[in-house]
Amino acid sequence: MTDYEKFLSLTGRQLTESAIRRMGTVVARGGDLVSFAPGYPDASLFPWDELRDISSGLLDGHDGNTLQYGPTRGYTPLLEHILTVLEARGIRTALEHLIITSGSQQGIDLIARVLVSPGDVVLVELPTFTGGIAAFKNAQAELVGVRQDHDGISLEDLDEVWQREHRAGKTIKLLYIIPNFQNPTGLLLGLDKRTRLLEWAERRDVLIVEDDPYGSLYFEDVATEAETRPLRADDTKGRVLYLSTTSKTLAPGFRVGWMVAPPVLIERFDTAKQSADLTSGILDQHIVYEAFRRGVIDRLAPRLRAAYRHKRDVMEKAIREHIGTRLTWPRPKGGFFIWVTLPDGLSDTDLLARALQHGVVFVIGSAFHVDGTGHDTIRLSFSAPTPDRIEEGIRRLAGTLQPALTRS
Amino acid sequence: MTDYEKFLSLTGRQLTESAIRRMGTVVARGGDLVSFAPGYPDASLFPWDELRDISSGLLDGHDGNTLQYGPTRGYTPLLEHILTVLEARGIRTALEHLIITSGSQQGIDLIARVLVSPGDVVLVELPTFTGGIAAFKNAQAELVGVRQDHDGISLEDLDEVWQREHRAGKTIKLLYIIPNFQNPTGLLLGLDKRTRLLEWAERRDVLIVEDDPYGSLYFEDVATEAETRPLRADDTKGRVLYLSTTSKTLAPGFRVGWMVAPPVLIERFDTAKQSADLTSGILDQHIVYEAFRRGVIDRLAPRLRAAYRHKRDVMEKAIREHIGTRLTWPRPKGGFFIWVTLPDGLSDTDLLARALQHGVVFVIGSAFHVDGTGHDTIRLSFSAPTPDRIEEGIRRLAGTLQPALTRS
Repeated sequence: MTDYEKFLSLTGRQLTESAIRRMGTVVARGGDLVSFAPGYPDASLFPWDELRDISSGLLDGHDGNTLQYGPTRGYTPLLEHILTVLEARGIRTALEHLIITSGSQQGIDLIARVLVSPGDVVLVELPTFTGGIAAFKNAQAELVGVRQDHDGISLEDLDEVWQREHRAGKTIKLLYIIPNFQNPTGLLLGLDKRTRLLEWAERRDVLIVEDDPYGSLYFEDVATEAETRPLRADDTKGRVLYLSTTSKTLAPGFRVGWMVAPPVLIERFDTAKQSADLTSGILDQHIVYEAFRRGVIDRLAPRLRAAYRHKRDVMEKAIREHIGTRLTWPRPKGGFFIWVTLPDGLSDTDLLARALQHGVVFVIGSAFHVDGTGHDTIRLSFSAPTPDRIEEGIRRLAGTLQPALTRS
Repeated sequence: MTDYEKFLSLTGRQLTESAIRRMGTVVARGGDLVSFAPGYPDASLFPWDELRDISSGLLDGHDGNTLQYGPTRGYTPLLEHILTVLEARGIRTALEHLIITSGSQQGIDLIARVLVSPGDVVLVELPTFTGGIAAFKNAQAELVGVRQDHDGISLEDLDEVWQREHRAGKTIKLLYIIPNFQNPTGLLLGLDKRTRLLEWAERRDVLIVEDDPYGSLYFEDVATEAETRPLRADDTKGRVLYLSTTSKTLAPGFRVGWMVAPPVLIERFDTAKQSADLTSGILDQHIVYEAFRRGVIDRLAPRLRAAYRHKRDVMEKAIREHIGTRLTWPRPKGGFFIWVTLPDGLSDTDLLARALQHGVVFVIGSAFHVDGTGHDTIRLSFSAPTPDRIEEGIRRLAGTLQPALTRS
């Protein structure tokens, strides 16, 4: 038979799998498993009735464009509406700065393709989103991690890392960062740090990729909307490429994200997208536009904030009750994740192997680290399971941890 | 302001735009323009009522997975159904050979990324689909064209080109080919040539990328289903990567395509797709599955064949009536396109500039040629306009051609 190895490109040989996607496969295998693994939103919160109504209206055949090929840049009424969505978050921009992507993931991928040459350094948070790691690695970037404090990325470490890589003769093009309720740590980047980060990017001549899927999911007991102000809102120098999506605020089944970037780059992303997938889903874009236009997404946001905050509370309470104080984590101020540090001597991979036997699954912390560390951490997503299942899952996790906790 | 040029990757600097996508932008500008440019299907033939019914059923909320993240490989019931669709076309395969892509375009792009290293030779037909050209070029392939006869690719020229490139020390990995109603020529590859092409690929150790979006759109006055038998159906050596889609047979707004390939490659494509867009549209996949399952697509096919055949007839008749015998073209046996050779001395770009003033637009033939030739050709799509508009557009084209035809 044919030997396919020799047909692989350099990229094909080095492809990096997303650890989260891999966990998704485990979960799909089923059985009675409580999954704290993927950052799935709660499907019971999707506005089913309104979406059914919207799609029926769109599919009445009065507008053939609803199912036709469309412009690569995106469906114009959606693009125009997103300008107002951005403005509400402090970002004043214009159509030539905007492109629709097939989820934010495609935004990261387009950035990686258009901006990253093999060997270029991309700075990322330690830990960071595995989908970001995979996209940049598949463009053969060299990923270098920067430490985080309780209020997000350490600016001191950032500049030290930059200087070290600069001295080593590296081309340092991008900093990839998730300022709001970071994946996987749940951390919120401090407002003062945001300003200083923009100054740093200008001083060091680096572009910032700001990934903001969770911005509107702040928990009102510990965070305010003002604290989620995007970097892009105060970016007077054109340093920030901003990504967002409706995957966490409407539903991920619509592959609709958007990117704000300087027009000269948007043109390149558009061209790259032409050969990547021609256009994002047209019906999806029409549905998302209608959901924005009818106020569905705005009306939903407070319900989502309350529901996910409640689930965070349930998970935190369950950990304290069933496991006690041996696990530590920064309290999430929003988003989907609790980022747990394990007791001394426990490894994330060993724990996962045993957890699966106990019927509970999570993502190992090391998967989010580009420097080989993080084996003393795990990510628990509280977003998808019901409160009862969260309780049950934490009870199972407690059972998994029991031998280790009593031994030490 | 920031200078972005220096941030571009090698790929970012060399991006190739799709000529068809560019024409799409011209058309979107509107005015009273008859467009023979993009290969859009006729939206009045979309099964609107059935699609509305299907989407209402899917969005009743009984299955949260309809709008949730899904497996990168695709929605399993859809994958399973596609196996039966493939079997009806002579392709017996299994799930591990199959992946859903965001349109066939993504299939080409994944192949380019996973298999093509910079400088690798990809053989293509002269002329060929601009989306294929763009995807392979963006992976920095060297594209080399092979001549076509009235029954598709010339096997003599193919081997001559292979030998020439081989002697020059090139790595020749892929042949990209559209055997059924080729884009842009409309040609149908002869059955005997299909067998010999498989033997050739095995002898020369090349993989074949078989792009088959139009296979079921044969015109029954001049072609039979048997003549559209995919190369993949007789591929006993694992030489063929097969791509298809519902973009031409249901609607392109659903970004749903599929690829059949050896499992070891499918795994790589899956990993590459994880970082490209995580997953194709979930609602789209559910809708397409239901459209298959309920027989919508099968019932539609004869209507599409009849409707597009009628439009071909209308366009051919109009050309003969209004322009006469100075234009020549191979009679389309299926698909969407008439591939016109212009009278001596007329250039595609000059003609397009004048045609736009006359309110008619097409794609210049040179855009489909990777060797700089083809300026004496144009592609006319008869698929989207109504018969009346086809008549009107050809009348305008006649007006555009008049000075040149009387002069010579």
